[in-house]
Amino acid sequence: MVPTTRLTAAVLACALITPALAQTPSFASLEASQNSANAAPGPRTLPAKVVPVPQDIGAAAQVLVAAPYRMPAWNANPASPDDWRTLVKKLADASLPGLAKAREMLGVTMEPTVIGGVKGFIFTPKSMPDAHRNQLIINVHGGGYVYGPGESGTAEAMLMAAYGGYKVIEFDYRMPPDAPYPAAMDDAMAVWTAALAMQDPSRMAIVGTSTGGGMALAMILRAKQEGLALPAAIAPGTPWADLTETGDSYKTNEWLDNVLVSYSGYLTHAAALYANGHDMKDPQLSPIYGDFHGFPPTILTTGTRDLFLSNTVRTHRKLREAGVKAELEVFEGFSHAQYLFDPAAPETKEAFAEITTFFDQYLAK
Amino acid sequence: MVPTTRLTAAVLACALITPALAQTPSFASLEASQNSANAAPGPRTLPAKVVPVPQDIGAAAQVLVAAPYRMPAWNANPASPDDWRTLVKKLADASLPGLAKAREMLGVTMEPTVIGGVKGFIFTPKSMPDAHRNQLIINVHGGGYVYGPGESGTAEAMLMAAYGGYKVIEFDYRMPPDAPYPAAMDDAMAVWTAALAMQDPSRMAIVGTSTGGGMALAMILRAKQEGLALPAAIAPGTPWADLTETGDSYKTNEWLDNVLVSYSGYLTHAAALYANGHDMKDPQLSPIYGDFHGFPPTILTTGTRDLFLSNTVRTHRKLREAGVKAELEVFEGFSHAQYLFDPAAPETKEAFAEITTFFDQYLAK
Repeated sequence: MVPTTRLTAAVLACALITPALAQTPSFASLEASQNSANAAPGPRTLPAKVVPVPQDIGAAAQVLVAAPYRMPAWNANPASPDDWRTLVKKLADASLPGLAKAREMLGVTMEPTVIGGVKGFIFTPKSMPDAHRNQLIINVHGGGYVYGPGESGTAEAMLMAAYGGYKVIEFDYRMPPDAPYPAAMDDAMAVWTAALAMQDPSRMAIVGTSTGGGMALAMILRAKQEGLALPAAIAPGTPWADLTETGDSYKTNEWLDNVLVSYSGYLTHAAALYANGHDMKDPQLSPIYGDFHGFPPTILTTGTRDLFLSNTVRTHRKLREAGVKAELEVFEGFSHAQYLFDPAAPETKEAFAEITTFFDQYLAK
Repeated sequence: MVPTTRLTAAVLACALITPALAQTPSFASLEASQNSANAAPGPRTLPAKVVPVPQDIGAAAQVLVAAPYRMPAWNANPASPDDWRTLVKKLADASLPGLAKAREMLGVTMEPTVIGGVKGFIFTPKSMPDAHRNQLIINVHGGGYVYGPGESGTAEAMLMAAYGGYKVIEFDYRMPPDAPYPAAMDDAMAVWTAALAMQDPSRMAIVGTSTGGGMALAMILRAKQEGLALPAAIAPGTPWADLTETGDSYKTNEWLDNVLVSYSGYLTHAAALYANGHDMKDPQLSPIYGDFHGFPPTILTTGTRDLFLSNTVRTHRKLREAGVKAELEVFEGFSHAQYLFDPAAPETKEAFAEITTFFDQYLAK
């Protein structure tokens, strides 16, 4: 018989060492304990487990799913504004060679521009279907309102140009720590207003992933409020629609998503930096709390392991409840925004082909 | 310093007691250990955690999400065919009072019928839109090829009749242990052939959830092969499209889904009983391995906690890759097929309203 003090020591040791020792115990050993832990209504108790890389997806997708957590991006917690600037620049610089190589591979050209007083880039594909010649895509980059300045935020614009055959304008909105809310949204609306002077809104769409998806939704809310014309369609990918940490997958997919990993990582700090004291439930910060009636047709993209799976499906359901034409694409095994990560993966091409098929139904020629 | 033998004892104790002690450790305590456990490409290591009931869904949905595991259904492992029969009958009988009450509440009538030599039920709603008067829905019930005989398998048919305003025929296909594959599919095809003599296929749809969703997909594959006319649309809800235990959510949502809980529960035994030695990769058993070209427009429904989330999104993606018009609806927090569980929940009504809106686009009047 184990003395009580010895057992207590074992329990304490257990609490400290369990994560490192995590293995998936056998079904037989879990069946009884899990039944017992989940025998009454309430929160769901889950055991530690090891989840294999799924074998039902392609080789390139398996590499993305198997990838280690993204360090230091996911859990960054810089101590000062200067430390934020240093980290953001370091990550941005590191992304540039890959982007240049991808543009080359995809045959996409990138030119600097200024639109509505905001710096940006124009992307032009190698070939463009006739039906797209008078169409224009506005892209809002992601990065939690802190990452992705300048050229480093151009992956999605490049992919949309390449795989959709569109002219795409991406813009470099101001971000904290230098410029918190509403600077980013003010820049976005300046860009949209300028775009309306360039092209008919029936021939335009707004595309954005993550923070860019949340901003795309907030742009529609603000355009409605200001009486501005709306685009013919939007494609918010896995949008950061809720900054209040509300949404089941923030917990269910925590530690499973290898991109964002946990909401308690950089996202919590970035949200606070951006909101800068504003109510995070304001629909301009968390568009899920806005009124989606009258939204243009919307296509949403996410993955089964995405920390923002709930952001995406909640947005989809709320759009549908408001009578909006809205479609949802979910990629097997993908974590947050992984359809942007490998320009050569078939899933990347497929994600943008879906958006293009959707836009072809709703954008005027 | 702890002696090695003491530490070994602690580790052993830990392995035994961890499940019962499961708590969500703090972020700070997990950050380092999780980073370390997920620092190399490969499987994902997850800590034990306690996931709260999401607060962003309605009261009725919260009750469904909070519900304990479904015992003894989820982990049934009867020792003999007679034990299977006893369990299935017990669960079926237990469901009847609730179904009768729901029909009353919804104003749906149920009459026994025989179609294609197969016993079934005809459901008629209190009121029917004019556009639905010449339309007919064929419903394939779920239950892992073992549960849901007779009247006990009629929840979805009732809900489709009530919330869609359709005439719906549900049928009682043969099941193991008495009749393994292909009995169920033979019955399903006899019903479909008889339905084709009752109504024009352009005015018909096939609806089924879980096993019924998998069978609906297999029916289209077999109808294509046999040169039978196809329905104008189908609605496979969270279809058991893959019996080979392939699909990421079989692992990622294990122990989180409070309906199916784990594939190692009754599903593994039911699949073996049904397949009865047949290759489970045969598209008639696992339709995900079939050719989806030429499928009718398809609407799929699932939930973020569904053990069959991957079955559903893989089916959706494969349909889209085959050029089929296919839409996906995902309910926040829902486990397997929970849109069938509470006839009064707004999400239940919404799920069937979505299917109806979809059918209204594709079924002839």
